[in-house]
Amino acid sequence: MGIVVQKFGGTSVGSVERIENAARRVVETLKRGDKVVVVSSAMAGDTDKLISLSREITEFPNEREMDMLLATGEQKAIALFAMTLRKLGYPAISLCGWQVPIVTDEVHTKARIKKIGTQRLKNLINEGYVPVVAGFQGITEDWEITTLGRGGSDTTAVALAAALQADCEIYTDVTGVFTADPRIVPNARKIPYISYEEMLELASLGAKVMQIRSVEFAAKYGVRIHVRSSFVEEEGTWIVPEDEIMEKVAVRGITVDTKESRITVVRVPDKPGIAAKLFKALGEAHIVVDMIVQNISHEGYTDMSFTVNRSDAPKAEEIVKKVSQEIGASAVVRDDRVAKVSIVGLGMRSSYGTAAKMFDVLSKNGINIMAISTSEIKISCLIDEKYAELAVRALHEAFIEDGEEIKVENEN
Amino acid sequence: MGIVVQKFGGTSVGSVERIENAARRVVETLKRGDKVVVVSSAMAGDTDKLISLSREITEFPNEREMDMLLATGEQKAIALFAMTLRKLGYPAISLCGWQVPIVTDEVHTKARIKKIGTQRLKNLINEGYVPVVAGFQGITEDWEITTLGRGGSDTTAVALAAALQADCEIYTDVTGVFTADPRIVPNARKIPYISYEEMLELASLGAKVMQIRSVEFAAKYGVRIHVRSSFVEEEGTWIVPEDEIMEKVAVRGITVDTKESRITVVRVPDKPGIAAKLFKALGEAHIVVDMIVQNISHEGYTDMSFTVNRSDAPKAEEIVKKVSQEIGASAVVRDDRVAKVSIVGLGMRSSYGTAAKMFDVLSKNGINIMAISTSEIKISCLIDEKYAELAVRALHEAFIEDGEEIKVENEN
Repeated sequence: MGIVVQKFGGTSVGSVERIENAARRVVETLKRGDKVVVVSSAMAGDTDKLISLSREITEFPNEREMDMLLATGEQKAIALFAMTLRKLGYPAISLCGWQVPIVTDEVHTKARIKKIGTQRLKNLINEGYVPVVAGFQGITEDWEITTLGRGGSDTTAVALAAALQADCEIYTDVTGVFTADPRIVPNARKIPYISYEEMLELASLGAKVMQIRSVEFAAKYGVRIHVRSSFVEEEGTWIVPEDEIMEKVAVRGITVDTKESRITVVRVPDKPGIAAKLFKALGEAHIVVDMIVQNISHEGYTDMSFTVNRSDAPKAEEIVKKVSQEIGASAVVRDDRVAKVSIVGLGMRSSYGTAAKMFDVLSKNGINIMAISTSEIKISCLIDEKYAELAVRALHEAFIEDGEEIKVENEN
Repeated sequence: MGIVVQKFGGTSVGSVERIENAARRVVETLKRGDKVVVVSSAMAGDTDKLISLSREITEFPNEREMDMLLATGEQKAIALFAMTLRKLGYPAISLCGWQVPIVTDEVHTKARIKKIGTQRLKNLINEGYVPVVAGFQGITEDWEITTLGRGGSDTTAVALAAALQADCEIYTDVTGVFTADPRIVPNARKIPYISYEEMLELASLGAKVMQIRSVEFAAKYGVRIHVRSSFVEEEGTWIVPEDEIMEKVAVRGITVDTKESRITVVRVPDKPGIAAKLFKALGEAHIVVDMIVQNISHEGYTDMSFTVNRSDAPKAEEIVKKVSQEIGASAVVRDDRVAKVSIVGLGMRSSYGTAAKMFDVLSKNGINIMAISTSEIKISCLIDEKYAELAVRALHEAFIEDGEEIKVENEN
C-alpha cells in the first residue's frame, strides 16, 4: 500500500459532472488499496472570472488582496470535490492551504513553498479519510494567504508528494506529453518516459502540460510524476529521473513557439559596451530577452537581433529606438511574424550531427534560419512564422518517426 | 474618535460599482476622523449560486464541506472591497473569519460565536489600516471553517462591535426599519428608534431587516445598531436599549406573515394527553409549531388548530392524519390561505385596550379572526390570506397614523 497524490486540473473539475468523473478516478485508486491525497485546481474559468472582476476595480490590484481573491477558486473546488467523494461513499475532508499547512514565503501571487506540515494529512489518511487539498494556495508564517502563480497546483501536488514520499499523478485534459503538438503533427506519439531535464526544456519552449517550477521541484526531490488524462483511461507520460530512462533517444520532442517577436538593430558601431547598454535598458523595463544574435562586423559595424515575448515587443521596440540613437545605429526593425522551433533530447549530449541534421531538414524544406540558440539538450531555430507548422512536421518526421538513424553513444 | 463597525449586505456589494459605492461610505466615515472596521456579506446571488452547485451534487451535502464552500462568497467580497478601498487611497486589509479569529462552536452551517480575538484588529487599526472582515464565517478551535447561518454577517458585525466596544452600522437596501412594509402601506414611516425587544418581535414576525440572532447578541452586549441604506444618505433606524427610547408608543410596527399554513384537527376527544401526542409527533419530525388554538369542548369533543411554516405543511398534515386515527379525531383540514398579522410595541405592556382595538379594527373591516396569540409586547391574529394587506393598512392607520389615541402609561 502506498500513497498517491492525484492532482486534477481546471478542465478536469470544470463542472459538477467532471468533478464526479474525477472523483471516480480517485475511487478506483482507493479500491486498489492505495491511499489518496487529492489536489484540485479551481474549476475551469473561475480564476479568469475572478481576475476580470479585480480588473474592473483597478488595473493594478493589491497583490495580497489578489491572493485572497484567487484562493477562493480552489476552495470552492475542493468543497465540491469532497462532497462528491462523500456521495460516492468515501469520507473526504477538504483542506485549504493554511489548514495543511503549506507554508510559503511572503511573495504574493508567486510565492514559493518553504515547508509543508504533514501531520494532519497523515492523521487523516490513517483514520481512513481522503484529504482533498486546495492547489495553488499557501500561507505565510504571519497567517497571510499566498498563491503560487499560474499553474501552481502542479507545484502543490509535487510538493505534497515529496513531503509524503508519495507518487504523483497529474490529471489533465491530454493523455500525456507528446513528441509534438498533435494538432500540428498527426503522427505525434505519446512519450512514455521523459526526464525532468527534457520536460523542463519542453515546458520552457512552449509545451503547456506542466508548470515549470513543479518540474524543478520534482527534480530536486526525485518525485516521479505520471501525467495522464482524466477523461481517457490509459497510461500517460512518466516524468522521472534520468537514470530510470532506458530508451535514450537523441530527440525526445519538437516544440514551436509563435509568441515571440524579433527586433533587429541595424548597423550598430561594433564597440565594447553597446550590447550592455541595450540589454540593460530592456532589463530595467522588466523585459525578458530570449535569443540574441550578433553578426560578424563589416567595416566596424554589425547588426544585432534578439527576440522578446510578443506582448513586450512594442515596448521593447520603443526602448531600443531610444537607445539606438545614443549608440548610433542606423535603424530598428521589428518582426512579429517569427516562430521558434526547437528539438529537445537528453541523447543530444552524446550524439553527433543532430544540429547539422536539423539545419539540413529546414534547408531542404526551403526554410531560412534567422537565428540559432542551443543548450546541452536542445537546439532552437528562429524562422519565418509561415513555415512554423511545416518545420515541426518535417523535424518530427526526420527525428522522431525515422529517429533511429541518429547515433546515440552510451554515456557510461 | 471612536470605532465604527460598518456592515454591508449582499445587495450593497452586489457588483463592482456597488462595492465602490459602499467603500465611499467607509471613506466618508474615515474622513470624519472615526476608525472603521468593515464587515461584508457575499455579493448578492453568490451564496445562492454556491448552494445550487452543491445541490447538483447531492440533496444532502456534508455540512462541513458546505461551510468550506459557502465561506468563499464572503472571502471574494472582502478581497474586492479591500482592493476598492486601496484604489480610493485607503490602506485596507481583508481578513477571513479564521484570520481575525472569530472562534465558534463546531455546529457547521449554524455555528455560534464563542470568542473573538481583537488583538490583530486593534493592531491594524492603530497602524492606520482599515480591516475588512468576512461576515458569516468563523473557525473552530480545531481550525475548521464554520458559518453562522443565513444572514450571519449581521451577527459578525454586532459581535465585532461588542468586542471592540464600537458602534455598529448595518448598511442594507432599505433606509431603515419601517412601521409596516412600505410596499403594502404607502404611509409607513421609518422608525427612528426601536428597542431590541421590539426588533426581535418584528424580525420573528416576518420583518426581514436583521437576522434574529444578531439582535439577541446586540441586546446581550448592549451594542447600539444603526440600520441604514447604503444607497441613500439619511439617518436610518437605531436599535437601542429600551431605556434610551424616549417616545414610548403602544404600537411600534405592524407585520404580516403569509408563509404559514393552518392545520385543524376536527372533533378530537377532549382527553388529557391528546395534544401531547400530536405535538410530540410533529416535534420528532423537526416541525416547528407556531400558533396553537384549542376551542372549548362540546360534548367531550373539541377542535384543535395550529399553524406551521407552509413548506412544512404537507409533511405536518401527513403526520397529523396518522395521529388523528390513533386519537379518534374525525378529520384533518389544512388551510394554506392564511395570514398572520401582528402589532408590536413596548408600550403595549402598560397601555390599555390595545388588543380590543385591534380586534375592533379587523371586525369593522369584515375580517374574521381564526386564531390569536399574544406576548407581552405583541398581538398576532390569524386571518384569511386575502385580507392580509387590507388588515395591515387598517391597523397601520388606526395604531400608527392615529396612534396618539392610545394611552401609554409611564412605567416608572
